[in-house]
Amino acid sequence: MTIPSTGKALRERARTGLWSKPTAGVAPGYAQANLVVLPRDCAFEFFLFCQRNPKPCPILDVTDAGDPEPLRVAPGADLRCDLPLYRVYRSGQSFTETTDIFNLWQPDSVGFLLGCSFTFDHALAAAGIIPRHVEEGRNVPMYRTNIPTTPAGRFRGPLVVSMRPMTPSQAEVATRLSAAFPRSHGGPVHVGNPATIGIVSLEHPDYGEAVSVRPGEIPVFWACGVTPQAAIAEAGIDMAITHAPGHMFVTDLIDTGN
Amino acid sequence: MTIPSTGKALRERARTGLWSKPTAGVAPGYAQANLVVLPRDCAFEFFLFCQRNPKPCPILDVTDAGDPEPLRVAPGADLRCDLPLYRVYRSGQSFTETTDIFNLWQPDSVGFLLGCSFTFDHALAAAGIIPRHVEEGRNVPMYRTNIPTTPAGRFRGPLVVSMRPMTPSQAEVATRLSAAFPRSHGGPVHVGNPATIGIVSLEHPDYGEAVSVRPGEIPVFWACGVTPQAAIAEAGIDMAITHAPGHMFVTDLIDTGN
Repeated sequence: MTIPSTGKALRERARTGLWSKPTAGVAPGYAQANLVVLPRDCAFEFFLFCQRNPKPCPILDVTDAGDPEPLRVAPGADLRCDLPLYRVYRSGQSFTETTDIFNLWQPDSVGFLLGCSFTFDHALAAAGIIPRHVEEGRNVPMYRTNIPTTPAGRFRGPLVVSMRPMTPSQAEVATRLSAAFPRSHGGPVHVGNPATIGIVSLEHPDYGEAVSVRPGEIPVFWACGVTPQAAIAEAGIDMAITHAPGHMFVTDLIDTGN
Repeated sequence: MTIPSTGKALRERARTGLWSKPTAGVAPGYAQANLVVLPRDCAFEFFLFCQRNPKPCPILDVTDAGDPEPLRVAPGADLRCDLPLYRVYRSGQSFTETTDIFNLWQPDSVGFLLGCSFTFDHALAAAGIIPRHVEEGRNVPMYRTNIPTTPAGRFRGPLVVSMRPMTPSQAEVATRLSAAFPRSHGGPVHVGNPATIGIVSLEHPDYGEAVSVRPGEIPVFWACGVTPQAAIAEAGIDMAITHAPGHMFVTDLIDTGN
């Protein structure tokens, strides 16, 4: 099966059940997005959380309460079925995964779409830095750090980061390239030593899958839009729906950097 | 009396009743801000309105419900008394003005601070373009236009603009300079013909005061943070509190452009 080359093509595959894998490497140039669906009652506080933590939570679109169509980034799309895989968090840590959320969407559900680092993977690849998770066909590894977010109401918790291993000289190029994508987390938050940001073992990511780190390579860490999932788990919200980590909403927005 | 040279100095004057005038020209280099105070019940929709209309409504800070201290832009300040003059809108169009809002602030009040074009007046003056309202000691003239904002929930209405008259060559310089202040409305939305954007008479502004337009000058219009006041009036919110147009909250943020 070919890899979808546009946001719309990926969404159609996801909608019809033909794509339930991670979205790294699909639709190059199209902005990918993290999803958070919350009841309207929590929406103001979560908006505040994003406003105060723009590095992990760059807002691409927010829907009106009850409206599953993200009008500004993908008119005609449906947040209830156009992602490959969803997580449903109930009362905190415990979650289940599902391929659509028609039966969970409420008249007061608000959808937040936040930028994702998969958006700049294409630019890294074009510069000869094939992201290891793309090369190995795995989900990107993601880790909880010891870097706190700025709280907003009941939302608080650690920054979550994604990791790409590369050589030091590649890390310099990747830093410059990703900084041109501020709506997709921008430049890295840390380069080099996992322990400095509280990561015990690169081989045991908290989300996604481990990838190979080769001799001479160092880990490069970017803020990640899974950060809200850690905050939702800590807040103990009755029910929140997100994308499954790595299984993003692919928008119609072209983002090839500033 | 000297003109306050810092945000803190202006706020102390306002707090003690020693400054109830417009804030154009005070505390050069410090970011000035529009204020909107709404009950928590309206806060999500208003946040959405700002998100969808970033040109008139660039968000500098949003307080937690009930907290009058804008921690990120002016720690220690108090939104209930640190502005020179407030407007209190009740059920839409009708409003009163007051110099503090202690008796109106509620446990669920949320304060929004939005960037203001007074922030770049200093840069214009440094380039030899003294804003006419500063030169004439008047409030800046502001007008409702025929340009619609993007609605969010009950908030909708016309874009409001501020106007500075200048020569065409000054307008080119001012366009370039103000574009470097994206958190203060950035570059102009229109240059030249008031009728094109639905303004009937420059001599009769909807907010603020008229200023002289000299032979050879053209009007230059910037998006204005009074836009929410037009939306609040149309929405018929039970009670909303804003700054009186031109009487801004002066922050501790230094903003001298990108």
